[in-house]
Amino acid sequence: MKVDGKHFRSIWLCPDGWSVAAIDQRRLPHEFAIARLTTCEEAAEAISSMLVRGAPLIGATAAFGMALTMRDDRSDQAIARGYQMLLATRPTAINLKWALDTMAAMLRRLPPSERSDAAYARAVDIASEDVTINQAIAGHGLGVIEAIAATKTPGERVNVLTHCNAGWLATVDWGTATAPIYLAHDRGIPIHVWVDETRPRNQGAALTAWELGHHGVAHTVIPDNTGGHLMQHGMVDLVIVGTDRVAANGDVCNKIGTYLKALAAHDNGVPFYVALPSPTIDFTVADGREIPIEERSGREVTDMTGCTHDGRIETVRIVPVGSPVANYAFDVTPSRLVTGLITERGVIEANGAALAAAFPERAKRTNY
Amino acid sequence: MKVDGKHFRSIWLCPDGWSVAAIDQRRLPHEFAIARLTTCEEAAEAISSMLVRGAPLIGATAAFGMALTMRDDRSDQAIARGYQMLLATRPTAINLKWALDTMAAMLRRLPPSERSDAAYARAVDIASEDVTINQAIAGHGLGVIEAIAATKTPGERVNVLTHCNAGWLATVDWGTATAPIYLAHDRGIPIHVWVDETRPRNQGAALTAWELGHHGVAHTVIPDNTGGHLMQHGMVDLVIVGTDRVAANGDVCNKIGTYLKALAAHDNGVPFYVALPSPTIDFTVADGREIPIEERSGREVTDMTGCTHDGRIETVRIVPVGSPVANYAFDVTPSRLVTGLITERGVIEANGAALAAAFPERAKRTNY
Repeated sequence: MKVDGKHFRSIWLCPDGWSVAAIDQRRLPHEFAIARLTTCEEAAEAISSMLVRGAPLIGATAAFGMALTMRDDRSDQAIARGYQMLLATRPTAINLKWALDTMAAMLRRLPPSERSDAAYARAVDIASEDVTINQAIAGHGLGVIEAIAATKTPGERVNVLTHCNAGWLATVDWGTATAPIYLAHDRGIPIHVWVDETRPRNQGAALTAWELGHHGVAHTVIPDNTGGHLMQHGMVDLVIVGTDRVAANGDVCNKIGTYLKALAAHDNGVPFYVALPSPTIDFTVADGREIPIEERSGREVTDMTGCTHDGRIETVRIVPVGSPVANYAFDVTPSRLVTGLITERGVIEANGAALAAAFPERAKRTNY
Repeated sequence: MKVDGKHFRSIWLCPDGWSVAAIDQRRLPHEFAIARLTTCEEAAEAISSMLVRGAPLIGATAAFGMALTMRDDRSDQAIARGYQMLLATRPTAINLKWALDTMAAMLRRLPPSERSDAAYARAVDIASEDVTINQAIAGHGLGVIEAIAATKTPGERVNVLTHCNAGWLATVDWGTATAPIYLAHDRGIPIHVWVDETRPRNQGAALTAWELGHHGVAHTVIPDNTGGHLMQHGMVDLVIVGTDRVAANGDVCNKIGTYLKALAAHDNGVPFYVALPSPTIDFTVADGREIPIEERSGREVTDMTGCTHDGRIETVRIVPVGSPVANYAFDVTPSRLVTGLITERGVIEANGAALAAAFPERAKRTNY
């Protein structure tokens, strides 16, 4: 999508043909900076520090990390070492493991001399496939938005609520939850997005608002506490969120607080959709309760970074010194609360049979 | 309750016998400062700027504001002017109107010469009555906590989740939601409080954590997004919150986000209690949907104030410049989601019949 009129992806291969560039998302919305990744270690650090984040982008970054590994050392040991280093960065998003499994299986079948070129080619493919998938998600999700727009008077806006950032910054381009929103906007449907701030890391306020604003999509940032009230008052037509892992039964693991919005949507008859590329489905996990939930540093809760009125980036503590904090990064929304899963193969029901029918080639394999 | 070993109320009459002292809650948790209020205008500004906040404390402050008015001018016009100025400060908490109606009705019946002394005496009474009421709430709520503690192994802690600050800082002393917690703690029941941060003003992180910490109660600050996940995993035994207004049908208006926690509690079979003094009940409002919801400045959402690591108080912007924000301060939790109302007359069901039976003298009057 566009930044100041220029098209960007969130990650790309540099013109030198080997190093990798990524938007440093830790510095948004106050600063637009590009980071250069030159080793597997740097790719792993980019993921764990959340320089890059979002399940699909984590997958693409891991694929590039494997390519950087192969550039230095094309041995079987290097494949295993890169795989483990990248896998250990974050536990919840399954796209990471999917990308690493895909890369490692492909590389092990090749002679070492071919591994570096093949790794780069496959990493670039994985990034491009993500864009293609998200464009398909956009098309299927557009149908949902158009159906709601058709019930409104001409010019009346469609109000979407989203949580966290499942935007183009969470993917390679387009986003998952935002893909239908961008397409609807581009097609001239008046659309407005309620953007959950998404504490503690503020991905909604910092990233979703920033990217919607740069693309010209009407939006309003709200505290995470607000969505229930809006739904009670008919101010939300539908919810669309992304996900870090979908279990075989349709349970959805996503950013902490998603479950609360799903409950409010259900209580108020508001449709609750989850947009995802199929690599986010984990057919090896029967039930969402089995998905490991990452716990992150308490600093993300105690401290808040922003921009002072005179333009300095400062971090301030908002919790009393001595008060313990907890920081669970994700929660699980039971499939019973999900209206539909917007995938590259269409909008499907959130249950095991529908998932298996839509992705039979993946459902049959319990390991990649 | 105690601050560094010394007992404080949140508001009190100064030793000079006429000016009013209050803890400046805008500066907590980083600075403990006392403000002095000398005019009705200053009392009104203290309420609207949230130097003081919390429904019961707003009521007490308004009563002192009327006393300050009478000190300057004891006319009927002054009663009306003070009443209107104070009433206009904040729309949602009904204790404000209750205190002003109580004061104005009493003052109008008196000759002007007696009004100043009577106003001070009644304001002091209203503050003291709040403490007495909260101590009764503590006793009734203790029974709820003891019943849960009895189901646990000895030494196993009782986990309470609370939202916003319905602590002693929200009242004159003891608090409403925290009153049973403090009493249980003082009685030796191992109790631990999950403290919702409570965006956008962070009253949980800034005030509830601060006061629990100073009293020695175990607690953990969590982002507002976290409570549902904790309840799904059996980590919350009960929820206790305060309220700014209870409708005649038992609907509960409280800090924005309370409704989301009530939904999660209901979905997970976690008891959801609301603690309140009877002045918080508004028998003139049939249904919670009629309660006006205050919208506050967007600055509370865009900006965050805290303490830098080198000890400076700074305000940082966390939302992109140009992104609109919305700031609804309260929401309404339908009575069907409320397990019980902990009042000074016992724990009662959240419905019109139970409320009217418990407070018949107030239910009969549709205006104070």
